[in-house]
Amino acid sequence: MAKLPIAPFEKILKENGAKRVSFSAGEALAEIAGEIAGEISKNASIMAEHAGRKTVVRSDVELARKNLRINL
Amino acid sequence: MAKLPIAPFEKILKENGAKRVSFSAGEALAEIAGEIAGEISKNASIMAEHAGRKTVVRSDVELARKNLRINL
Repeated sequence: MAKLPIAPFEKILKENGAKRVSFSAGEALAEIAGEIAGEISKNASIMAEHAGRKTVVRSDVELARKNLRINL
Repeated sequence: MAKLPIAPFEKILKENGAKRVSFSAGEALAEIAGEIAGEISKNASIMAEHAGRKTVVRSDVELARKNLRINL
């Protein structure tokens, strides 16, 4: 699976209230973001197919996000 | 807000069923992943504070993810 770079996620943690961030916290956030993006992507592909397209476009991703349910 | 690079998200779309991907689809997925990471981060900071720490660690992020509710 595509790995996301960790540095931007450390930055996001700091922009959202973290005073300090451990390396593994940034790593965990990158992993989780990748998993959630994967879930949205699967749904976006289904949306594109449903619309008779071979190309996934922005509206497919946006609709997939709306339908996202996170159950952990 | 920290911007996430688009290329890895195009890759994630392709790894999850997309035959072709428009540029704006990758862009949308990167934006959405950034927003969701921001929501998780806010919650992770609260978790760290609740535990009497100044450093956000992996378990804060994981717990924040579990508590994530996406309402759009």
